[in-house]
Amino acid sequence: MSVVARTLLGPGPSNPYPEATAALGLPLLGHLDPVFLGVMDGTCERLRTVFGTANPRTLPLSGTGSAGMEAAFVNLVRPGDTVVVAVNGLFGERMVDVAGRCGADVVRVDTPWGRAVDPDRVLAAHPAPTLVAVVHAETSTGVRNDVAALAAGLRSGAAGGALLLADCVTSLAGIDVAIDGWGVDVAYSATQKCLGVAPGLAPFTISDRAWERRVRRPRSWYLDLGLIGEYAGGAVAGSGGRTYHHTAPVAMVASLHAALGRILDEGLPAVVARHEACGRALQEGLLALGLELFAEEGARLPELTTVRVPSDVDGAAVRRELLERYGIEIGGGVGEYAATVWRIGLMGHNARPDTVTLVLGALGEVLKR
Amino acid sequence: MSVVARTLLGPGPSNPYPEATAALGLPLLGHLDPVFLGVMDGTCERLRTVFGTANPRTLPLSGTGSAGMEAAFVNLVRPGDTVVVAVNGLFGERMVDVAGRCGADVVRVDTPWGRAVDPDRVLAAHPAPTLVAVVHAETSTGVRNDVAALAAGLRSGAAGGALLLADCVTSLAGIDVAIDGWGVDVAYSATQKCLGVAPGLAPFTISDRAWERRVRRPRSWYLDLGLIGEYAGGAVAGSGGRTYHHTAPVAMVASLHAALGRILDEGLPAVVARHEACGRALQEGLLALGLELFAEEGARLPELTTVRVPSDVDGAAVRRELLERYGIEIGGGVGEYAATVWRIGLMGHNARPDTVTLVLGALGEVLKR
Repeated sequence: MSVVARTLLGPGPSNPYPEATAALGLPLLGHLDPVFLGVMDGTCERLRTVFGTANPRTLPLSGTGSAGMEAAFVNLVRPGDTVVVAVNGLFGERMVDVAGRCGADVVRVDTPWGRAVDPDRVLAAHPAPTLVAVVHAETSTGVRNDVAALAAGLRSGAAGGALLLADCVTSLAGIDVAIDGWGVDVAYSATQKCLGVAPGLAPFTISDRAWERRVRRPRSWYLDLGLIGEYAGGAVAGSGGRTYHHTAPVAMVASLHAALGRILDEGLPAVVARHEACGRALQEGLLALGLELFAEEGARLPELTTVRVPSDVDGAAVRRELLERYGIEIGGGVGEYAATVWRIGLMGHNARPDTVTLVLGALGEVLKR
Repeated sequence: MSVVARTLLGPGPSNPYPEATAALGLPLLGHLDPVFLGVMDGTCERLRTVFGTANPRTLPLSGTGSAGMEAAFVNLVRPGDTVVVAVNGLFGERMVDVAGRCGADVVRVDTPWGRAVDPDRVLAAHPAPTLVAVVHAETSTGVRNDVAALAAGLRSGAAGGALLLADCVTSLAGIDVAIDGWGVDVAYSATQKCLGVAPGLAPFTISDRAWERRVRRPRSWYLDLGLIGEYAGGAVAGSGGRTYHHTAPVAMVASLHAALGRILDEGLPAVVARHEACGRALQEGLLALGLELFAEEGARLPELTTVRVPSDVDGAAVRRELLERYGIEIGGGVGEYAATVWRIGLMGHNARPDTVTLVLGALGEVLKR
């Protein structure tokens, strides 16, 4: 059978950095091999750099981004805790579900899809929640939420100084993320977006402040950060050696290590500037094609652009033609926007001028037919 | 930096089948790409064959083997349920922990490490538990437990006909597994053992009978089989199309698909016979070296052999020399046997005569020094 190759310009996965793919093919190492433990420590250190944090507890969890979300809630929320969740897309919605399963009393602050969350409304939603949760880059709508402003409000005492959780699945290594600079307590990401790796790991970081308030025996064994830290946290001062928890997904960790190396070689500011420039070029090109963008102006993510499907166009047919004729994958919309919105990602290795030219050219041709 | 290559003869990961490694380097596909959905369906179908089941709900979960364990308990156990767990090693012990976090009233049936569980004692432990759980191949001790006998007892009405859960992490595709033939209700495995793939996925299967008794809104969103089935279960009759749940780890699934293809091309009976022959040759060779085996005779796994470290030998130093001089990884023991037992795996691609010769030769040389 022929091997199929695609240009992955949907909401993720995106095509990995070549270094990430090459690393998957290297000889496999044992999860307790000293050489692999060096790769793991290096990965944690590189993750600290891209997260913008000194948190000793920064590591790749052994699941996809959604496992990162679950780990955040399951380790911080006890039954009866109040959790404020900002909801302006599918992933905010998912946080409500996950927090609810932890027994939280969830206070949701809804904003229409396609618009950014108002930090003041979130801060005013409850006087003293345990946790305030927000999605930095809403993959379902292409909207950037102002995590910095939310964090500043919490630092100044709003909402009783609650812990802040930020979903950085589609933001990390694509737009600025400053966990310590902003004052975020817990954050997670996913490998298949701007980090430029195949899906399968959830980079995760938690502040000392949040760590001290963690649930000591969470309902999840697999995502129990206390147990995981005994293996992955060799770099944590005073953690006293490594204990086996579960078998680390060594090939995926080596791949993430390689992609992070590529990103830091280029330089994080340059990587962010590249995403910014490509996203702007794509969005201008789409407007020039006569298309309308979905996310509100001022809150548009460069790495994930949402476009309204013209009313006389069959959105699914266009996506199918892009896939079949050009090998290009773009995404449909989510929920009630499934048929009326397209999502075009320029993430990681795909945030390149040639990719912008390709997708604009192909979309222009298909729409002209 | 030089690339380090090892012969992985510990308790897993083992060196993947070459086809599995090659598949990791193929162009990445989107998780909703029709071509990838074909790979996913094919993987589920191949898993049915190696599990020996017609269960429509057979799929790779997006985590390591321990995530498979957690999924089994979290989807079947409600607070207050009685769960009987057979414990004769670390993984039985882990089941007790995981079931406890689900709120189960756990009845443990202990057997000394290195000996097989007595099915009759397990069946008599409680008149009507919700679930009886056993580890088929105890990775910590190299012992095979008689799942068939336990299943037969439950089928004939013992323990009120409770559901049977079998941990097949180190057994699947190494020794006989017959989920339907025996009457096992839920089972999981891991990719890095006899399946010959890097770690990262948990093959999973659940019977219709267990499915009907499942928890409708389990505490874990990530491992909620009802939600996952809407994506992965395209092949399930009446499931009505696929819904996005989380982004499948596409590269790892493609790798598993390839390894399963290799296994089924060789033929499952031939693969099992190869493990059996290599394990026997290793165990005979170890005895010929004057070493003593740890697992009791009659219950020794061919794919994972446990050896007592001679009393005048530093077990860790031997392992270090095997690693540094020969590039061979073998495992230490677990828990109180950490320093006094070695674990030697011959799993998947490593179940080969040359590997047996290599490890026996190297160990003989190191012990003679």
